[in-house]
Amino acid sequence: MKREEKARVPPAEQPPASPITKFKIALCQLKVTADKERNILHARTAVEEAAEKGAKLVVLPEIWNSPYSNDSFPVYAEDIDAGFDASPSTAMLSEVARLLNITIVGGSIPERSGDKLYNTCCVVGPDGKLKAKHRKIHLFDIDIPGKITFKESKTLTAGETPTTVDTEVGRIGIGICYDIRFQELAMLYAARGAQLICYPGAFNMTTGPLHWELLQRARAVDNQLYVATCSPARDTTAGYIAWGHSTLVGPFGEVLATTEHDEAIIISEIDYSQIELRRANLPLEKQRHGDVYQLVDVQRLDSE
Amino acid sequence: MKREEKARVPPAEQPPASPITKFKIALCQLKVTADKERNILHARTAVEEAAEKGAKLVVLPEIWNSPYSNDSFPVYAEDIDAGFDASPSTAMLSEVARLLNITIVGGSIPERSGDKLYNTCCVVGPDGKLKAKHRKIHLFDIDIPGKITFKESKTLTAGETPTTVDTEVGRIGIGICYDIRFQELAMLYAARGAQLICYPGAFNMTTGPLHWELLQRARAVDNQLYVATCSPARDTTAGYIAWGHSTLVGPFGEVLATTEHDEAIIISEIDYSQIELRRANLPLEKQRHGDVYQLVDVQRLDSE
Repeated sequence: MKREEKARVPPAEQPPASPITKFKIALCQLKVTADKERNILHARTAVEEAAEKGAKLVVLPEIWNSPYSNDSFPVYAEDIDAGFDASPSTAMLSEVARLLNITIVGGSIPERSGDKLYNTCCVVGPDGKLKAKHRKIHLFDIDIPGKITFKESKTLTAGETPTTVDTEVGRIGIGICYDIRFQELAMLYAARGAQLICYPGAFNMTTGPLHWELLQRARAVDNQLYVATCSPARDTTAGYIAWGHSTLVGPFGEVLATTEHDEAIIISEIDYSQIELRRANLPLEKQRHGDVYQLVDVQRLDSE
Repeated sequence: MKREEKARVPPAEQPPASPITKFKIALCQLKVTADKERNILHARTAVEEAAEKGAKLVVLPEIWNSPYSNDSFPVYAEDIDAGFDASPSTAMLSEVARLLNITIVGGSIPERSGDKLYNTCCVVGPDGKLKAKHRKIHLFDIDIPGKITFKESKTLTAGETPTTVDTEVGRIGIGICYDIRFQELAMLYAARGAQLICYPGAFNMTTGPLHWELLQRARAVDNQLYVATCSPARDTTAGYIAWGHSTLVGPFGEVLATTEHDEAIIISEIDYSQIELRRANLPLEKQRHGDVYQLVDVQRLDSE
């Protein structure tokens, strides 16, 4: 095996030949309220508007059906595995994806599974089927005294599995908010052949201006793929105030589309030939030194 | 072993207790000419000025004794291993470090070793001794048609060994320019307990504005340590035009000091207690999932 191939264990996969390689993506930066029914209807309306504008892939924010708080998570949680009847939020995604013939990366909602709660992203395809479910792996437990202290682990359980999913619009890796801080996850997704990583995420008024764009651009340029983020709109009366600034970043780390903190539906274009171009410009994958460092995808290795 | 400890193989080391934890650093952004003797004298004068301003650590640019070109590397190269008599550039660093009682991360110079050439950084301590030598691991071979095409591998050989060095001013990891694009190296240095990574580097007029600051800030915030870069000053008449913008970044990804493209000696302060603070705010190290990904330091593992 070549020196550079050893830098990823198992060796990196190439991105798949996607059904389509150039398409419109929509990032729906939605205002979230305490009224769950309203949130679901509101998200549905946004997805419809996005599809009307030509989006083949629609991304929703982190925790879009519930206020973002440890008090709310158990109240708003849905049992996704019990089927669409038990999960009105997921049922809506399924129905609207099928009716509009689009793929949806459904932000995240609190998920109940047995006696555990997760922060979970559902991906649905144009056939309305649930294609993947990502449970946030890295729980948001931070403490910046006087600025922001939050402990998701008070109520939530961490997911244990990385998620890549083959869709009509390419191979997508999923991370939720704090997952973006762990560069290993993005590296692992790139090695699995992901062309796009979607991070629904609600950064806050402290870490948002400091790190939100920086982390997205870093993941994109280091791994030479697209990164899309989708935040709730800012509500200054909420217990947790989101930074907003949903963004699409290209494989050269360039911000292709972004917004401020108000409600917005960002429409932009993804063109996977840009990934090939940038990987030809800077052939990082062929320049790695597997004799110095190796990134192990533990679960992909175990499954081989 | 705990889940998070498995994310680094071997497990991460804590930073050492440094002799001093708060000190001034100088980044000497120097103009480089075709006159080697002048370059050495010029660098010496800059180091003296930096020390006069209180710097305990002085960083020089990539290839500061020679024009940056494949034609020049063989002509300006010095045999560092043959001792200071055979390497006037290194001899100067040694003498000035001893006289001024400082540590120098000596940018880089072309090194001749047998029939091979390397792009090499020398670190000298206040006793004038060569403490470490880093040979650029990732050679700068890029091709952005119409913008910048360069192939260091035409003349240079890649180094094979990561470099961390314990100095009077803490544990320092060394990378040279293109090494910064490989996040694995910075992760490995952090896991070896580095508090500061110094990247002498000459980004260009294409990748400079796109990626120079982004990569520095990303390495700092992801690994929660200091990152210092030092570029040559810009010479628009040179064959390779450097971007400049030498910068110090803190462990929250914050730019602490920077400059434009002219000659400059940047003086700024490093305070390692900031590393502890930021690692307490965002305890990333304790939040990693070694059951999902592992970063292997191949040579540290082999040496155990």
